[in-house]
Amino acid sequence: MSTSRESAGRRGPGAKSAERRRSIVDAAHAVFAERGYNAGSFQAVADRVGMSQTGLLHYFPAKSDLLLAVLQRRDEVSDTVVEPSAGFAESVLLKARANESIPGVIQLYAVLSGEATTTGHPARAYFTTRFERLRTGTAAELRALQQEGVLSPRVDVAIAAASLAALWDGLQLQWLLAPDEVDVVACLRDYLDALFARP
Amino acid sequence: MSTSRESAGRRGPGAKSAERRRSIVDAAHAVFAERGYNAGSFQAVADRVGMSQTGLLHYFPAKSDLLLAVLQRRDEVSDTVVEPSAGFAESVLLKARANESIPGVIQLYAVLSGEATTTGHPARAYFTTRFERLRTGTAAELRALQQEGVLSPRVDVAIAAASLAALWDGLQLQWLLAPDEVDVVACLRDYLDALFARP
Repeated sequence: MSTSRESAGRRGPGAKSAERRRSIVDAAHAVFAERGYNAGSFQAVADRVGMSQTGLLHYFPAKSDLLLAVLQRRDEVSDTVVEPSAGFAESVLLKARANESIPGVIQLYAVLSGEATTTGHPARAYFTTRFERLRTGTAAELRALQQEGVLSPRVDVAIAAASLAALWDGLQLQWLLAPDEVDVVACLRDYLDALFARP
Repeated sequence: MSTSRESAGRRGPGAKSAERRRSIVDAAHAVFAERGYNAGSFQAVADRVGMSQTGLLHYFPAKSDLLLAVLQRRDEVSDTVVEPSAGFAESVLLKARANESIPGVIQLYAVLSGEATTTGHPARAYFTTRFERLRTGTAAELRALQQEGVLSPRVDVAIAAASLAALWDGLQLQWLLAPDEVDVVACLRDYLDALFARP
């Protein structure tokens, strides 16, 4: 199916379409970051990128496709705030701090991740895969730190990996409801400090 | 407004109305526990309690009112699984274990808590208050354990209280998506064991 696109090369129509798709997702990320879940609309995204709603629907036939693309973009943007040399805990805290500047996108994440638990929801596969990848990836990083002698060999890395992702999500939910009372970074730091201090 | 209800006493129409309301919420709790968020409908609740949908709407004009009443009922039911003599950690783990038998209600909680972060959502006040109460109540319990010498005085009880609630919510979300891979009780036990082992 994608053969004609691929053979068109970087400057062909396939590349142009990918560029346009990317600029739509950038616009949607900005719209949701600024306005939050309720006020972020297809029309606002279309206006920002200078397209009609019909044109936008050509690239993203369902609103859920665009919302998931925004969350994937968030993951990419989130990775760019961390230097490759940053340590494990430092990376987590830098990403958590960066999320504080995009509450509307975090709100989108909270709404979709909750809805994704229902049967047949279009975001279910995305979140199931995302959490699997997070649990596996974090467990591998923690295992490497055990081998370096930085983390106690008695820590169950699978439990710590699931727990860190869970703690982060739950803290962000509380923070969205009470931003002046819940300090996501302070709580994550407390967890990570205690994890690395375990005997 | 409620004067006539109150003066009607326990056996009067006010008490009858409260009983009927309670039986509706019980029916809704059972329907959502069995069928989950998507399949749980006003019609299914009305059928179970032997009322018409119109009759049900008299008690719960908006679906969100009934859904929130189900979550409040869950909190009450959850408290009954714990003996008054149970310790702090034991209480948490017993409640978490009990939640495993009502995935449909936990799904309802996940959906509504995510949606509640959006501006003007009817569940926003419930969740904002719930988390405030949880943070304050848990912090007070932990402070008492510090005074008894069971918990290190160096633990920041406010951070631990917010973190425990957050961890629990995040774990349940991952468990709903991958029930065979995520063990909520094991992860909570790991957190609590480490918390009480802190120097």
